Amino acid sequence: MISRAKIKWVKSLQLKKYRIEEQSFVVQGLKSVQELLDSNFQIELIAGTTGIMQNLEFSSEEKRGEWISVSAKELDLMGTFQTNDSVLAVAKMKENLPMLPSSNEFVLALDDIRDPGNLGTIVRTADWFGISKIVASASTTDIYNPKTISATMGSFCRVGVTYTDLPAYLSKCSIPVFGAFLEGANVHSENFGAGGILVIGNESNGISESVKKWVTQKVFIPGFGKAESLNAAIAAGIILDNVFRGKG
Amino acid sequence: MISRAKIKWVKSLQLKKYRIEEQSFVVQGLKSVQELLDSNFQIELIAGTTGIMQNLEFSSEEKRGEWISVSAKELDLMGTFQTNDSVLAVAKMKENLPMLPSSNEFVLALDDIRDPGNLGTIVRTADWFGISKIVASASTTDIYNPKTISATMGSFCRVGVTYTDLPAYLSKCSIPVFGAFLEGANVHSENFGAGGILVIGNESNGISESVKKWVTQKVFIPGFGKAESLNAAIAAGIILDNVFRGKG
Repeated sequence: MISRAKIKWVKSLQLKKYRIEEQSFVVQGLKSVQELLDSNFQIELIAGTTGIMQNLEFSSEEKRGEWISVSAKELDLMGTFQTNDSVLAVAKMKENLPMLPSSNEFVLALDDIRDPGNLGTIVRTADWFGISKIVASASTTDIYNPKTISATMGSFCRVGVTYTDLPAYLSKCSIPVFGAFLEGANVHSENFGAGGILVIGNESNGISESVKKWVTQKVFIPGFGKAESLNAAIAAGIILDNVFRGKG
Repeated sequence: MISRAKIKWVKSLQLKKYRIEEQSFVVQGLKSVQELLDSNFQIELIAGTTGIMQNLEFSSEEKRGEWISVSAKELDLMGTFQTNDSVLAVAKMKENLPMLPSSNEFVLALDDIRDPGNLGTIVRTADWFGISKIVASASTTDIYNPKTISATMGSFCRVGVTYTDLPAYLSKCSIPVFGAFLEGANVHSENFGAGGILVIGNESNGISESVKKWVTQKVFIPGFGKAESLNAAIAAGIILDNVFRGKG
């Protein structure tokens, strides 16, 4: 049995204001909750219908956090999704500790990504290529937004997203910084080394002036049609496929 | 001055049922409406605030369709977006006439793409690479959904999306059919010719069995992390970058 107060608390975490106050966020759906259980996130609550909770596998000796059986209706009251696979979890945010990349590491830098779905897709794509570190401008949308967490398809467990003053961060990095620009060199001919930072710009305005000055290698994805630009996450995926081409 | 009946009519087009009845759809935002004006779509209505409508450029002798000045509030009542750049248009759908590809043409086939944003992003990406033809399974989400039209960023004007029985369509094609599968060949080593069809599968289930049997070349995007899959639109973008690599 779940209390009304707890339902209200989980629901409040849909808003960034309350997520920050509580330093907690919500994970919805069987796949994502399973990935959360397999991660080192601190779990506060698992709430699901009895049948679905039995499908969760956990390797630790004890169930982490509080486990509560709820009705489908109670779950609807707490979550944001029409279909949420009948389970959700509340976990503690990780500390925001932006770290500089090592010399043979590839990381992403997000310059004002605003769309929660785009951010989630970028995190999922980074995970595909084995990238574990993303630094984002303070203006970039919140990784702990329920839509973003959902779009990562569980990859939020393996890719750390931290927020920082991006120009200041880039000024301290001594590895190549790549960014997509119309006047850039053909990405197919670019020589990507073992380490680097790929900057992804804002959906409408691209890479900002203050970040642009830290970009050491401008690249361009050849196109043959009349679209003015590619979606930010699509451009990231294509560039990363070129970065990791022939590696691994 | 716009009538209440017309406001209600425009608003009704947010629903597929009424779009089909009316064979009409809504385009929102200055950029998209401008692209619509530059296209050969039949335009029924342009409604915007006076200031914004003056920014529209049109090359034809006469304004196509009815032009009505409306208040920001009236626009809000008609549209779906919080920010819609203060102009929207209603245009006639094009006839659904799926055409077979020519032997030196590259087209996309969508097998049950469900997310409106994904569909729009795929259309935009296709346009970037100069693809003008997309055939979709009947179960694929509606190209005329307002979210989809918006996500295409105007590319719906240049890329025709038609709906058909996909296995039957593919059975009539005599050019290579590509699809992404975990057991596929490395997409970096694939020899893409001038003509082909790239099948993009459903977001959760990938390519269906009935479509899979028409795929002649299975490809795979090498990854190095633990993500189970890539977003459908991201995979499409990466494969198309490989298809058009060194061409044009």
